[in-house]
Amino acid sequence: MCQLLGMNCNTPTDIGFSFAGFRQRGGATDHHEDGFGIAFFERNPNGKIGLRQFHDDKPSHLSPVADLVNHYPIKAMNVIAHIRKATTGENSLANTHPFVREVWGEQWAFAHNGQMTDSFIRRTERLIANGNAEHYAPVGDTDSELAFCYLLNRLKATFKTRPSDEALFAFLTAQCRYLSANGLFNCLISNGNWQLAYAGSLLFYLTRQAPFGEAKLSDGEMSVNFKDVTTDKDKVTVLVTIPLTDNETWQQLAVDECVIFQDGDVVFKDTPSKKTYLSIEEGIALARSVGASV
Amino acid sequence: MCQLLGMNCNTPTDIGFSFAGFRQRGGATDHHEDGFGIAFFERNPNGKIGLRQFHDDKPSHLSPVADLVNHYPIKAMNVIAHIRKATTGENSLANTHPFVREVWGEQWAFAHNGQMTDSFIRRTERLIANGNAEHYAPVGDTDSELAFCYLLNRLKATFKTRPSDEALFAFLTAQCRYLSANGLFNCLISNGNWQLAYAGSLLFYLTRQAPFGEAKLSDGEMSVNFKDVTTDKDKVTVLVTIPLTDNETWQQLAVDECVIFQDGDVVFKDTPSKKTYLSIEEGIALARSVGASV
Repeated sequence: MCQLLGMNCNTPTDIGFSFAGFRQRGGATDHHEDGFGIAFFERNPNGKIGLRQFHDDKPSHLSPVADLVNHYPIKAMNVIAHIRKATTGENSLANTHPFVREVWGEQWAFAHNGQMTDSFIRRTERLIANGNAEHYAPVGDTDSELAFCYLLNRLKATFKTRPSDEALFAFLTAQCRYLSANGLFNCLISNGNWQLAYAGSLLFYLTRQAPFGEAKLSDGEMSVNFKDVTTDKDKVTVLVTIPLTDNETWQQLAVDECVIFQDGDVVFKDTPSKKTYLSIEEGIALARSVGASV
Repeated sequence: MCQLLGMNCNTPTDIGFSFAGFRQRGGATDHHEDGFGIAFFERNPNGKIGLRQFHDDKPSHLSPVADLVNHYPIKAMNVIAHIRKATTGENSLANTHPFVREVWGEQWAFAHNGQMTDSFIRRTERLIANGNAEHYAPVGDTDSELAFCYLLNRLKATFKTRPSDEALFAFLTAQCRYLSANGLFNCLISNGNWQLAYAGSLLFYLTRQAPFGEAKLSDGEMSVNFKDVTTDKDKVTVLVTIPLTDNETWQQLAVDECVIFQDGDVVFKDTPSKKTYLSIEEGIALARSVGASV
């Protein structure tokens, strides 16, 4: 279901411009009107990362909570946002992404676009009902939160303590591949330091850095010249289901590609040997065919 | 450290009036200006409970996030709010109560007022460093989140699956008593259905029900006649460190008393055989003597 927006940067950055376009798709320029959520990982002056989340079950284009997010400049290192078109699980706060769980003393945020298969849902629900969800269990009733809990339970069952980034990233890629083999699975995951992007169908990114230029939203009349609001050292990567601007070049993730960003840079990439890219129309058609929505 | 505000009701209720007074203590009428947080457990039309949280590291009396909370009427079944005066752990989002963890597919929110002893902190940090925090570990560096993780790790180690309410409430009382023996420990805990209140020193509550009357805030010029905004069936319990109104009768919890509320009613109570009540002045003096603040 729905659409994803992510940001990963090397300096605290206000996502206001991207969010201003993205939220229009929640009921104004598109039909993802069953609530929204946004998670900000912020770094305080001493370098400590904290998380704050905003959720609403109102459509994002007119939600007062989304208004606050737009008007209260929150400078974050990592952001994950999601607008929802309900498919599995009714419209309720408990079903609103991003979902958050604490892992080894870190907050992990997760948002999903797609649809897990019925057999995955039944199998995983049975595992949890039989007491095999020692660590994490879903609160709401979406296939997405179920997939997140599945992934985290596998993670904790495999590693007693935090492994190296190398081992962790390889493990997460393998788990995303498994989930993608059991449904339509695009996701963003962040622990506040890095952000993982996995494309089951459609996912694009863009890294803005010096020399900065002008950007113009596809979903509104807004434009910004990033030269006026940045320094030469800034590096800001924006991730999104469907590009937000039409005068910049967005890079597409291949189907089943996993890319991890840190400080705005790609720090890990795992690409299938045979690269496939869907057009936006193909991605939307694929989502519709499995009962999801893009 | 700091001050607690809770609400438990039998019908979705807007905490706006109480919060309007409470937030003034975060920098205007009192000095708890190191951020605030509020967690709302809301029930959707199908009876499903969802949680949303608002946190800010700005003082609550002037925070734009607190403004939103005041102006956007959120009707909740359970609320836990906290204003912070930093003692252990700097002012940062990661140190802002309420802390939330998922337990058996439920969101549990926790806020603490007090100060754990150095020996409890050292002992528990060592347990966690040695891999004995299989389930929960703190994200920030407050003694409060450490105490919450301690309690939840004990809970999961003791019960593989959710026990009966009777067994659960007895267990939680015993854990709160242990924590109270290892520091100054006032807390509120809610899973969205019930709300637990434990008084280590100061905690008051008030149940508003028919016939409703007028209430007047101690921290501002505001008053409300609840007759105008309620039905005869409504039952709303408000919990707070220091009473919010001066024309109503607040009930005080005895030191080391544990009371659990559901639908606005007391459903469980465990009172020490020898009841002690501190005056507000004694409670403030006790908090100061252990380096906490009220």
